[in-house]
Amino acid sequence: MYRTNTCGELRLEDRGRKVTLAGWVQKVRSLGGMTFIDLRDRYGITQLAVGADADEELRQTASQLGREFVIQVNGEVLERQSKNPKLPTGDIEIKVDGINILNKAQTPPFTIEENSDGGDDIRAKYRYLDLRRPPLQKALALRHRLAHEVRNFLDSEGFMEIETPYLIKSTPEGARDFVVPSRMNPGTFYALPQSPQTFKQLLMVSGYDRYFQIVRCFRDEDLRADRQPEFTQIDCEMSFVEQEDVLDTFERMMVKMFKNALGVEISSPIPRMSWYDAMDNYGSDKPDIRFGMTIHDLSDRVKGAGFGVFDSAEYIGGIAVPGCASYTRKQLDELTEWVKRPQVGAKGLVYVRLNEDGSIKSSVDKFYTEEQLRGIAAACEAGAGDLLLLLCGEKRKTQTQLGVLRIELGNRLGLRNPAVFAPLWVVDFPLLEWSEEDGRFYAMHHPFTAPKPEHLPLFMSDRKEDLERVCANAYDFVLNGTELGGGSIRIHNAEMQERMFEVLGISKEEAEYKFGFIINAFKFGAPPHGGLAFGFDRMCALFGGQETIRDYIAFPKNNQGRDVMIDSPSRIDAAQMDELFLVSTAPADDKGI
Amino acid sequence: MYRTNTCGELRLEDRGRKVTLAGWVQKVRSLGGMTFIDLRDRYGITQLAVGADADEELRQTASQLGREFVIQVNGEVLERQSKNPKLPTGDIEIKVDGINILNKAQTPPFTIEENSDGGDDIRAKYRYLDLRRPPLQKALALRHRLAHEVRNFLDSEGFMEIETPYLIKSTPEGARDFVVPSRMNPGTFYALPQSPQTFKQLLMVSGYDRYFQIVRCFRDEDLRADRQPEFTQIDCEMSFVEQEDVLDTFERMMVKMFKNALGVEISSPIPRMSWYDAMDNYGSDKPDIRFGMTIHDLSDRVKGAGFGVFDSAEYIGGIAVPGCASYTRKQLDELTEWVKRPQVGAKGLVYVRLNEDGSIKSSVDKFYTEEQLRGIAAACEAGAGDLLLLLCGEKRKTQTQLGVLRIELGNRLGLRNPAVFAPLWVVDFPLLEWSEEDGRFYAMHHPFTAPKPEHLPLFMSDRKEDLERVCANAYDFVLNGTELGGGSIRIHNAEMQERMFEVLGISKEEAEYKFGFIINAFKFGAPPHGGLAFGFDRMCALFGGQETIRDYIAFPKNNQGRDVMIDSPSRIDAAQMDELFLVSTAPADDKGI
Repeated sequence: MYRTNTCGELRLEDRGRKVTLAGWVQKVRSLGGMTFIDLRDRYGITQLAVGADADEELRQTASQLGREFVIQVNGEVLERQSKNPKLPTGDIEIKVDGINILNKAQTPPFTIEENSDGGDDIRAKYRYLDLRRPPLQKALALRHRLAHEVRNFLDSEGFMEIETPYLIKSTPEGARDFVVPSRMNPGTFYALPQSPQTFKQLLMVSGYDRYFQIVRCFRDEDLRADRQPEFTQIDCEMSFVEQEDVLDTFERMMVKMFKNALGVEISSPIPRMSWYDAMDNYGSDKPDIRFGMTIHDLSDRVKGAGFGVFDSAEYIGGIAVPGCASYTRKQLDELTEWVKRPQVGAKGLVYVRLNEDGSIKSSVDKFYTEEQLRGIAAACEAGAGDLLLLLCGEKRKTQTQLGVLRIELGNRLGLRNPAVFAPLWVVDFPLLEWSEEDGRFYAMHHPFTAPKPEHLPLFMSDRKEDLERVCANAYDFVLNGTELGGGSIRIHNAEMQERMFEVLGISKEEAEYKFGFIINAFKFGAPPHGGLAFGFDRMCALFGGQETIRDYIAFPKNNQGRDVMIDSPSRIDAAQMDELFLVSTAPADDKGI
Repeated sequence: MYRTNTCGELRLEDRGRKVTLAGWVQKVRSLGGMTFIDLRDRYGITQLAVGADADEELRQTASQLGREFVIQVNGEVLERQSKNPKLPTGDIEIKVDGINILNKAQTPPFTIEENSDGGDDIRAKYRYLDLRRPPLQKALALRHRLAHEVRNFLDSEGFMEIETPYLIKSTPEGARDFVVPSRMNPGTFYALPQSPQTFKQLLMVSGYDRYFQIVRCFRDEDLRADRQPEFTQIDCEMSFVEQEDVLDTFERMMVKMFKNALGVEISSPIPRMSWYDAMDNYGSDKPDIRFGMTIHDLSDRVKGAGFGVFDSAEYIGGIAVPGCASYTRKQLDELTEWVKRPQVGAKGLVYVRLNEDGSIKSSVDKFYTEEQLRGIAAACEAGAGDLLLLLCGEKRKTQTQLGVLRIELGNRLGLRNPAVFAPLWVVDFPLLEWSEEDGRFYAMHHPFTAPKPEHLPLFMSDRKEDLERVCANAYDFVLNGTELGGGSIRIHNAEMQERMFEVLGISKEEAEYKFGFIINAFKFGAPPHGGLAFGFDRMCALFGGQETIRDYIAFPKNNQGRDVMIDSPSRIDAAQMDELFLVSTAPADDKGI
């Protein structure tokens, strides 16, 4: 061992001890003949002192040290003259007897400190240097701690971690698969799993009862901001359970994680909200309930006043923005432009100012009396000083726009404190989602989710209106406006699964080709089962109080799916292509690195 | 919840309790108007009894039950008339009040019992049914337990589990990579990792100090028996350590796993053997030390007696097979044929029988006196009743053949008891291995292993003889003749790494293209580091007392790399190929399913 202690552990009570430390040179300062060196490792920083009276060779070596040199030092722990209360080791320093340079370092291209001076691109290229920074070290330590807590909890509840294969079969339904050409079976491909969904259900058929896995998943999507082509899931499944059992188990898990990893007490039971209420009141299936500003349906109240835009709309909804009656015309114009951006897609914005002095001013004064406006305000639970914002159009679309506007204003008004944790179960999701574009239903969760038993008659109906009303025992775990996980009670019956594929417009042949093994498995005694999966990258980020997952992944890819550090993806040898019986038809100038 | 108890937990003290169980019908027997049902889940089997006096509907339902039906039953725990001491629940049975058939089952294609009547192929196709069998359930439970023990131990030692990427860069050195075409970067490919070797070294450069990961690895090899294209490793790395620190840490881990998972006490320290001694005495770099029968170098003793075969051989070695002097001529002929098979490759076999009556008989009587033969026997530590077997040829090749013969005879003589665990560290491996075929050196471990510091002058030499003598601080963990893991102290210096690539005949350009990021990383302050990796699939199998890993993997692939249950690999849609800019040139009749 190159050290007797880490750079984070020596204290005043270690005074007089002879120690050996090893680490990275954070900083070197000369002061009146003395040389002070901050030595860093992942446990902390310890100050080293080379005295003016030290021998020539030692002073020589100390003077050669540069940032990020790796050194080993021997010396004695002394009480410091001027203590540093900001450092846990700030009461002591090491009087150095000897320095051994283990490895020199070129000057790093950016500073290795709490906040670096390097831009995103250079830090990505030198990820191994960025990873030395304390915030990233803390992020990965939190990730390790959370994974360990999850495993300990689930193990104590009788769950078994079972590894499922990564080389599986391509079954494109939803996102694109990454595929892997098989050399031994020319012309064929494996696929990387988008999730172990079918395998965990097979494990239930096999009687494993309580399964989990912290597992990598892969999706070849066009990357939106903060998505990764590979991501990690906490994947769980249970047999002989109903929705209540699943929610109870994972509610206890989350409460324990908050407590053990963050010291945060989450009051149990965690609130629940139906999908319909979430959409109606928050315009989102993942409401942030840390603040109010809920959406109110004003359709009945504002229609028929001669304001054509409202009169012809299916739905009119509003939110009361607290304390913003004083918004200027310019601010309101900016907000109007903001909701009209294609990312939100509203046609316009109606406002009502409830001034502090009791007066009211709106952009629709010519259509509504003050009385009527006060009625609208009351319906939105708005008081003096608040600003009402109204949108109209198709119901769900308008609610979603109001939801986006609500979140934006929550951000602007500082109502979304990352140190406050407000978990929520969203339940009773619709089973199916109609796509106007494709003229077919899609599964809202996935095609293995079961309809609620009481909705079976609707599920067997051929009418679109009936099928739209079918609900599932499906549930999402939402934290601070982000969906952290979700799951459902599954179909466990072959006929029901076949009916599901029929409803989704998947032909018998296609279903047999893609999912034959699971339909078949259901014929040999499948137990009732259900489960859920959590997005682990995002869970880590939220627990760490961050919006972006990138710092919680050791080696993430950029928005083009590239790892710029290792320069991947890249060309492969012609011999490799030949062995795989593959020819690339990519345009020549795209071919490569 | 569909049950109040599992099928493995009720005991005599539960008498009189009203319970609800759920599980699979293992067996139905009718006896004098009574119906007995064995109900199974992963926790055990409980006997259900439907009385002759039960109501008509209940008796009707019981009579319909078939093997593997999934049922839920209500009833009362009663003391059994005729107890079954073989079952933990054998003192009780459930007097059934009601049966709810949760799911019917077709008759499974093989029996779901300790030993199934199904062949390998049918059980692979219906893997989800085979996984219901108790030996497989025990195997996966052991695997979960071992993984959990590993994580708890390493966490308690300050190791952090850090996930490294699965979509990396193809760097073919050794085995073939599986590659993944990138749709977003046409013409380029990711590769699946053969191990996280470079990433864990980068994490050391980043200061993570103590890293581990239980991680999937991928190798596109022509599959030998009992190899899988994807396999799991316990991957570990430490900074500021020497070989002794690594061995100490993982020795403690293994001792703990044996104790906690198997209740087996392994005496510490675990023995160590140099690679040279292992080759000389056991003809293997992974000796099974559960039994003796070591190899003895007889070259000096037997040469020059006029026996041309020995006189012209570089090396003659022998083993003493205990108690086998009585082998018949036929048995010896069979052994001779066995060593001449291409898998062993010996040219012939010389024997010396040390008969119980003190007489000696050998196949080379005309070249050696009885005196000389007794000298050979003494050199091999053979006594009366033993059989000496001698092979000759090139030194290492002959030792290897003797090693294979030794293991074969160990098996035949029952000297390899799977319930006995004899771990061993093999140390001091040569750094390099010369390939006559390719006319170049290969790294014996991998190109990141450091030469022993005292061998640096040899390492800098250009003479083949010098380079062949360079040793590494590399080590393998061997259990019962199987290599379970291995590792080394790594190179942490850019110039040394460049020298290594030079020795391996990897050009500067090639090294830069494939490993530029790690050579570069070493320039910014890399700490001394080392580590190792264990093969987790095989570890589970050996701990379970089995030779084959297949039962310890939930969904393994067959020898053609196929998963016959999901029928993968398979063709993908033409649209998928187009999106990837790929055309397959595989012969039409090879194109998959």
